[in-house]
Amino acid sequence: MQIAMMGLGRMGANMVRRLLRDGHQCVVYDVNPDSVAALVADGATGVNSVEAMVAALSGPRHIWIMLPTAITGKVVDQLTPLLSAGDAIIDGGNSNYREAIDRAAALRPHNIAYVDVGTSGGVWGLDRGYCLMIGGDTDVVQRLDPVFACLAPGGDGPTPANRGYLHCGPSGAGHFVKMIHNGIEYGIMAAYAEGLNILKGANAGTETRAADAETAPLSEPQYYQFDLNLPEIAEVWRHGSVIGSWLLDLTADALKTDPDLKAFGGRVSDSGEGRWTLKAAIDTGVPAPVLATALFDRFSSRGGSFFADRLMSAMRYSFGGHIEKPAEDSKP
Amino acid sequence: MQIAMMGLGRMGANMVRRLLRDGHQCVVYDVNPDSVAALVADGATGVNSVEAMVAALSGPRHIWIMLPTAITGKVVDQLTPLLSAGDAIIDGGNSNYREAIDRAAALRPHNIAYVDVGTSGGVWGLDRGYCLMIGGDTDVVQRLDPVFACLAPGGDGPTPANRGYLHCGPSGAGHFVKMIHNGIEYGIMAAYAEGLNILKGANAGTETRAADAETAPLSEPQYYQFDLNLPEIAEVWRHGSVIGSWLLDLTADALKTDPDLKAFGGRVSDSGEGRWTLKAAIDTGVPAPVLATALFDRFSSRGGSFFADRLMSAMRYSFGGHIEKPAEDSKP
Amino acid sequence: MQIAMMGLGRMGANMVRRLLRDGHQCVVYDVNPDSVAALVADGATGVNSVEAMVAALSGPRHIWIMLPTAITGKVVDQLTPLLSAGDAIIDGGNSNYREAIDRAAALRPHNIAYVDVGTSGGVWGLDRGYCLMIGGDTDVVQRLDPVFACLAPGGDGPTPANRGYLHCGPSGAGHFVKMIHNGIEYGIMAAYAEGLNILKGANAGTETRAADAETAPLSEPQYYQFDLNLPEIAEVWRHGSVIGSWLLDLTADALKTDPDLKAFGGRVSDSGEGRWTLKAAIDTGVPAPVLATALFDRFSSRGGSFFADRLMSAMRYSFGGHIEKPAEDSKP
Amino acid sequence: MQIAMMGLGRMGANMVRRLLRDGHQCVVYDVNPDSVAALVADGATGVNSVEAMVAALSGPRHIWIMLPTAITGKVVDQLTPLLSAGDAIIDGGNSNYREAIDRAAALRPHNIAYVDVGTSGGVWGLDRGYCLMIGGDTDVVQRLDPVFACLAPGGDGPTPANRGYLHCGPSGAGHFVKMIHNGIEYGIMAAYAEGLNILKGANAGTETRAADAETAPLSEPQYYQFDLNLPEIAEVWRHGSVIGSWLLDLTADALKTDPDLKAFGGRVSDSGEGRWTLKAAIDTGVPAPVLATALFDRFSSRGGSFFADRLMSAMRYSFGGHIEKPAEDSKP
Repeated sequence: MQIAMMGLGRMGANMVRRLLRDGHQCVVYDVNPDSVAALVADGATGVNSVEAMVAALSGPRHIWIMLPTAITGKVVDQLTPLLSAGDAIIDGGNSNYREAIDRAAALRPHNIAYVDVGTSGGVWGLDRGYCLMIGGDTDVVQRLDPVFACLAPGGDGPTPANRGYLHCGPSGAGHFVKMIHNGIEYGIMAAYAEGLNILKGANAGTETRAADAETAPLSEPQYYQFDLNLPEIAEVWRHGSVIGSWLLDLTADALKTDPDLKAFGGRVSDSGEGRWTLKAAIDTGVPAPVLATALFDRFSSRGGSFFADRLMSAMRYSFGGHIEKPAEDSKP
Repeated sequence: MQIAMMGLGRMGANMVRRLLRDGHQCVVYDVNPDSVAALVADGATGVNSVEAMVAALSGPRHIWIMLPTAITGKVVDQLTPLLSAGDAIIDGGNSNYREAIDRAAALRPHNIAYVDVGTSGGVWGLDRGYCLMIGGDTDVVQRLDPVFACLAPGGDGPTPANRGYLHCGPSGAGHFVKMIHNGIEYGIMAAYAEGLNILKGANAGTETRAADAETAPLSEPQYYQFDLNLPEIAEVWRHGSVIGSWLLDLTADALKTDPDLKAFGGRVSDSGEGRWTLKAAIDTGVPAPVLATALFDRFSSRGGSFFADRLMSAMRYSFGGHIEKPAEDSKP
Repeated sequence: MQIAMMGLGRMGANMVRRLLRDGHQCVVYDVNPDSVAALVADGATGVNSVEAMVAALSGPRHIWIMLPTAITGKVVDQLTPLLSAGDAIIDGGNSNYREAIDRAAALRPHNIAYVDVGTSGGVWGLDRGYCLMIGGDTDVVQRLDPVFACLAPGGDGPTPANRGYLHCGPSGAGHFVKMIHNGIEYGIMAAYAEGLNILKGANAGTETRAADAETAPLSEPQYYQFDLNLPEIAEVWRHGSVIGSWLLDLTADALKTDPDLKAFGGRVSDSGEGRWTLKAAIDTGVPAPVLATALFDRFSSRGGSFFADRLMSAMRYSFGGHIEKPAEDSKP
Repeated sequence: MQIAMMGLGRMGANMVRRLLRDGHQCVVYDVNPDSVAALVADGATGVNSVEAMVAALSGPRHIWIMLPTAITGKVVDQLTPLLSAGDAIIDGGNSNYREAIDRAAALRPHNIAYVDVGTSGGVWGLDRGYCLMIGGDTDVVQRLDPVFACLAPGGDGPTPANRGYLHCGPSGAGHFVKMIHNGIEYGIMAAYAEGLNILKGANAGTETRAADAETAPLSEPQYYQFDLNLPEIAEVWRHGSVIGSWLLDLTADALKTDPDLKAFGGRVSDSGEGRWTLKAAIDTGVPAPVLATALFDRFSSRGGSFFADRLMSAMRYSFGGHIEKPAEDSKP
């Protein structure tokens, strides 16, 4: 079927390619003309404005938006007056599910459908397919079934969920489920990262340790004498263990390429879903301490606890005269 | 090759079956004669005492112990005087890695090898194979290679790690790596559990809420009106998403069978490795807040925070005259 | 000066008494006529409706609201049309600071001031005085200075902050600071509660422990043989230690009266500020893992993790065939 | 009475001064002769070796050790052969309570008493008095009562606990209780630090924020426009609020002197007790997530999560092609 894609970044461009492969007709637009040109070369119809995109579609129009959440709202506002009753906007980005609820309500009087599709799969989705979590009215979700079926991994499972896409509920439900998906993702990533970090420190007993009142002693250094091979350990866990996962597959691969991960500075971004997950937990009274801790670790990795840490050092100085150790002597 | 298995529970019995399938010769012993008989029926040689087990083996003997960690030590003490130089004990249970270090050192003067093998795979290992994390002297680990290769998932990967087993380092290294494996497992399980719990509460806005000073208000109930299908959501995440994993496969299956999980009371056991993981993190100064939180959640699930909770209620009463709400009115 | 108080619960009634003692003129109203009568006996002017309250005040009117946050909004809506330019509403309850910002903005065109006053002190405030965190326009905050000075603890400190009240900033700033105050309070309470809970378990080594694969062994029971006197320990910490505090004073007193705290069921309420604190931390990217954990502990104390716990038991059963232990055998 | 003090650092020296003030006879020793000389000037008897210290005491001797825990063991080994039956060693440092249990047992055959005294009060103890948590045999603890009564804050409370010292139980009980005291201290410090850190970030809405897929949007910046005065807020909380405490007194003072705490680098040391607290919680199955989080924050403040953070960035790059933002653009 015919569909437009707005936002041709890593995700959007590959989704178009997957749709084209399957014979769907794609109209593509991005502020970067090179991104458009690359997909035109693959068989898409390129346009150079939002207006041209709308004009290139026959009704009912389907416009899939794949943009940073901070921009999506403005684009929807821009699109709305150009569309007609029966058209549909699909937001496949990482937007807050509340915006989907609000936008769907705002568009309903215009008889324009708003479908929120949480999309997981990253840069691998082109080949693996994308996991799609869908919210919106049933009729339009059903009309878009060929698109969802194409983007999802597929296979011969009996239900759409078995083939990688699911109509989760009314507007907002798709992004709500994707939000929780990403919240879980943060927790899983932190679990692997903490565990591997302990493995990396398993030789702590081979180092000499200061014997002063500011340094906790390591009482039994004989138990921390291991020089472990992290890339091999991540690899072996992929085979038959309880913690095998796709994230572990990727982690093993990353460690094989660069065992010390020198390519990274350790400033872990977060793009919003983990935050919203926690707000939902807080609102509904559901304990989520693991997911919270994982999110806050990311904030700390970017320096967010600096003032709090200085406060604790100031308190220690105030009550005990404790002087901070210099950086080189204050290893964990 | 010939090997004895002591402890024929869920794990031990299936490991014997996998070895027998591959043509290995297994001598089996358990305090429960029925467990022995079942494996004799499958082709194993059954014995009815530790002494008989030792006598049934030709040297160098290899005795694999698969017992609760609280019992393993006593069994090793019982075995030691019966063995000869060159023999080997393999501890495949969830013992503390420190015991492997200590036991290997204690057995070295007798020239008896002690190999610690962290074994993951659960009840599925019979078919999937077991992930094996091995610690011990290189010569005996190499001698046991046919056993490890048989128990592991196998395949045609270039290294043992690619086929599911890894010699991680000297005595203790195998159980150390398995310990961290389980610590990570706790974190991953908690991440899924917390996320799915939030999904379950996504209809909180449909319930009426008390408007008193002891109850936090839900300011925007319109955003919590979802009745989500958890079994289908767990299923869809298995296909193409970033959080796909074997644990998710099992979770989806469990939810399909029993969506409300009424078969379970929510008292989550822990068998030690998560505790030891944290002690290692603490000793070596590695932050592990996610793994800690996951462990402590298990303690709480079994009532461990009861006195702490009463203390907080007592404080609230003391400073603010706050009376505890009755159980039925104090939902989260 | 003249001031009206609406909401004569534990906090409101005592605040009126403190104002009356100091010669202020108080008009009091509550839906419960007995609460009104009690304060009339102490010298207040009682009224039996919102309208009567407004009529009893000479302009510019000052009406202090001390109600559950879920009700405050409706009362403000009811009051607004009855008031005149120059009047002021003071919200001393635990409302969300965002509501203060929004209400102040909505009332500004009517030239009605809205002052948000975070009020800490609990049932002890009558004698100790209340700590007041104030947000709003400078002119009305200054006009109310005699009231704040009377309610606060006082003393001869050089600045209002030294005497227990502070104009923190524009509308919302008072409730924002009070919100964080309560967030910190949750963390401190949990710190004491966890520590005392460990002390209570210091005799764990005297109990026998199952030796099965579902139970983590206690390897060195000789180190957990203490029968500690918690009331005396809480008492001694009050004198000269680093953790002395008013909350500890209250805790010591509560433990002295009821060492096992049998009067409490351990369902710890939360009234909103801890939740909003975390949302502010999340919005602004500030790590708050301790405060989050403390909040989530309260949710768990009221059963909020029940489904998550069952999920973890279900996973353990799925991968390892682990059967939940019965309640009496599954102590932490 | 007569007592020797070994280790004349911040704590030891002031304790001697407090004892001298009260007319006790003090023999003092330190590896630093200047520390000895300073106390001789105040009236103590100085010695220049362990042997001289023992010789200067009449029996039964009482030797109080105030040293880093990593050194205490060696000093006890050095002292033991020099002492006689009936003598007593008092360990007032932050040693692991397990060492007190072991040392008391080792010294019992020699009829030398070993008393463990957890000592809180920091540099302020000279004037305020020290909170003393005491473990050991009743007879020697009673014999030392004049020393404890002098060092403790005192006053006219009916029991020793009311005057600031407590015989908590047998050997180890004093350091066990002090260990938990410090674990609680970590939690309280973190609670204040996190809360004040959120206050510091309350103006986040005034900053411009990148609108890219790596940056979580701040959807309602109008609610984060506060420029709060942290020194004044800490001060006001000291007066009448629920979170008043001695640590808050010190914090308010530190913020008044240096509002941005530029004197500190934010590398927060830990000296062991917080670690041991958690191990005790883990051993005994008591949930302590707040105390754990507080400890792990200290590890992170010293760089302990660096590898874990790089791992998470590596995973994000692997699954989503996410590139780390440069340091200046990756604020929390």
